[in-house]
Amino acid sequence: MTVLEQQGLAAKQAARALSIAGTTQKNAALAAIAEGLLSHQDDILTANASDLERGRQAGLTPALLDRLALSSERVAGIVEGVRQVAALPDPIGEVIKMTTRPNGLTIGKKRVPLGVIGIIYEARPNVTVDAAILCLKSGNATILRGGKEAIATNTALAEIMRAALVSAGLPADCVCLVADTSRESATELMALTQYLDVLIPRGGAGLIRSVVEYAKVPVIETGTGICHIYVDSEADLDMAADILYNAKCSRPSVCNAAECVLVNRAVASAFLPKAAALLRQKNTQLRCDPEALALLGESGVAASDADWDTEFGDYILAVKLVNDVDEAMEFIALHGTGHSECIVSQNYFTVQRFLNEVDAAAVYANASTRFTDGFEFGLGAEIGISTQKIHARGPMGLEELTSSKFIVYGTGQVR
Amino acid sequence: MTVLEQQGLAAKQAARALSIAGTTQKNAALAAIAEGLLSHQDDILTANASDLERGRQAGLTPALLDRLALSSERVAGIVEGVRQVAALPDPIGEVIKMTTRPNGLTIGKKRVPLGVIGIIYEARPNVTVDAAILCLKSGNATILRGGKEAIATNTALAEIMRAALVSAGLPADCVCLVADTSRESATELMALTQYLDVLIPRGGAGLIRSVVEYAKVPVIETGTGICHIYVDSEADLDMAADILYNAKCSRPSVCNAAECVLVNRAVASAFLPKAAALLRQKNTQLRCDPEALALLGESGVAASDADWDTEFGDYILAVKLVNDVDEAMEFIALHGTGHSECIVSQNYFTVQRFLNEVDAAAVYANASTRFTDGFEFGLGAEIGISTQKIHARGPMGLEELTSSKFIVYGTGQVR
Repeated sequence: MTVLEQQGLAAKQAARALSIAGTTQKNAALAAIAEGLLSHQDDILTANASDLERGRQAGLTPALLDRLALSSERVAGIVEGVRQVAALPDPIGEVIKMTTRPNGLTIGKKRVPLGVIGIIYEARPNVTVDAAILCLKSGNATILRGGKEAIATNTALAEIMRAALVSAGLPADCVCLVADTSRESATELMALTQYLDVLIPRGGAGLIRSVVEYAKVPVIETGTGICHIYVDSEADLDMAADILYNAKCSRPSVCNAAECVLVNRAVASAFLPKAAALLRQKNTQLRCDPEALALLGESGVAASDADWDTEFGDYILAVKLVNDVDEAMEFIALHGTGHSECIVSQNYFTVQRFLNEVDAAAVYANASTRFTDGFEFGLGAEIGISTQKIHARGPMGLEELTSSKFIVYGTGQVR
Repeated sequence: MTVLEQQGLAAKQAARALSIAGTTQKNAALAAIAEGLLSHQDDILTANASDLERGRQAGLTPALLDRLALSSERVAGIVEGVRQVAALPDPIGEVIKMTTRPNGLTIGKKRVPLGVIGIIYEARPNVTVDAAILCLKSGNATILRGGKEAIATNTALAEIMRAALVSAGLPADCVCLVADTSRESATELMALTQYLDVLIPRGGAGLIRSVVEYAKVPVIETGTGICHIYVDSEADLDMAADILYNAKCSRPSVCNAAECVLVNRAVASAFLPKAAALLRQKNTQLRCDPEALALLGESGVAASDADWDTEFGDYILAVKLVNDVDEAMEFIALHGTGHSECIVSQNYFTVQRFLNEVDAAAVYANASTRFTDGFEFGLGAEIGISTQKIHARGPMGLEELTSSKFIVYGTGQVR
């Protein structure tokens, strides 16, 4: 058995115990985790300082170092997150529907944990705690495989969580951290079919591609977002400019930020200068098709073909004119990633068509795509945003970390 | 573009049209399919005769030839299936929940099709129609890749369905049949990530293993069933024998048939002769652990280690004694495949523990495992029985062939 297989077996055994733990016990473990993170804050920050030092020597970018860095405030934020999850309703045990069949069999569909969830992620150490506690609350054991940059911090965090689990009477192996941060350990985890029930990658396009390539276990893909705003001929143009500005500029690095605006030709000359004036506040570069460029002049630059299929993650926006909602929807079908898509329009029928026909995890009328988020959607928590269609689509909360089983009450029925 | 990629693209485009087709139009297509199958029955039977002739020359077993064979009666059965699916409620368009957030956004979760579903299956040509119509009713396009033994029959069936689709105003490519039945075409289909939203393999353990190995698209695994009957110390022994006999002998080739009985030591000497008397009616071979063998004498044979992990699919039953429900559940956790598991007991607490703690798609108290089936569970239809935990678990009907999307009604909200 490899080290990872041993962890897998241990996690699977822990998951069995955890699957029948009551809410009270799981919440006690979460309280102990919050407690432990606070009382061992110094250990966490010391470990983090060593990761940061190593990162600086390895020449990590300031942005990456910032993602890696913890502080008292950030630890307090993580602890607050643990307490919020403890306060959420426990999804496990709910019987979703129950019916009695003509032969007298009573059949219920009961919500149960998935089992063992693998999480592969990159530099941010807060994911270590976020992912583990969401899985814990929903009755799942986790095998965490974070990036090498954060290994000292992650080890400290995992040890605190494992000790807290034991103090609450649960197996330490409900939370397992993979110590080996080589590429090989990630690939091995992706193929651990005997022990993993599902794998959730959290990271950039490169990680997702690698998971699609190598994973043999079921995967919930949390994909990239190339989100569009379509400004209809009947849009309120001020509202459209506000929504576009918010969707592009409030936080351009995230997946629900807009990357492309599609503007109806009928309103392009009125809308574009209005939008450009707002976007200029953040020095947003506008990469335009020829017609939009003609209207924007020096405010824009010419778009390349690749720009229509790029998640910029920056103050860059692709701009294209279209004839009507049909051309907009056609373009979105071709270039969208199925994340979040928005129409701004006052026409009832045009809006309804867009909401019905566009195929994405979230489709908006007259609101910013930036709302695609577990908290904003009222799920209380979020482990990621699924852009695949099976199991879960869009923001995933606790319910999306569960499966179901049929429980059948008989009185001797045979078939 | 390969031939399969061209089919994938065509299916994806057809799926867009199908996703917004109303129930009336989909039911019209289903009626036209039923009609077409009846009026072209001669073509179907002629094609089937050529498959059978080829199969006989290739030395297929009688069992395989029987699965491959169609007759007027079997065609009538397929047509009846089409009419039943047409009569089922359309799952698409239902808004599962809808709430208004504090900021005024109204957010609904709407049931939508998965998109393009790949089906890989073996010799049975009825699957060609069954799978296509369930996908059609739930708004999905299909790419069907059946076994080479049935290619002539499948081609005839697919052509009839494609013509019927066109007559109802839907694209023919809502149903695509892969003409190339080589192993390579199956492997290529498993990796068609650009066009396939999900792959459902329907077949034996070898096919499932190959899919786990090669699939890059999301898979819904319809796995094997090693199902157990645990006869508790407080079981009604006549009921237990009836349930065991039904679970083993009513149709031993199917995945919900029992393969192993676990008998509480306290009742073994009373139960085993009773059960053996029933099982003897079908000449069922009892492969026993040493203690059970001592009790059964000449009625049993010694089990090998492999017998505890084998889906016999035949009149063969593994027999083992256990101390209590804990030992039974431990054994099931180790040797079960998560399909269907049963306890026979009159003790309330023992039954509740078994139902809560055993991890399987369906867990039974005092009824035969043979009920694990979409029709028996009241789903109205079945495309397979999932033994994985994500997306769907247990019998899958029309709802399990759907995804969801969030529709968000705003009035200018920004974040």
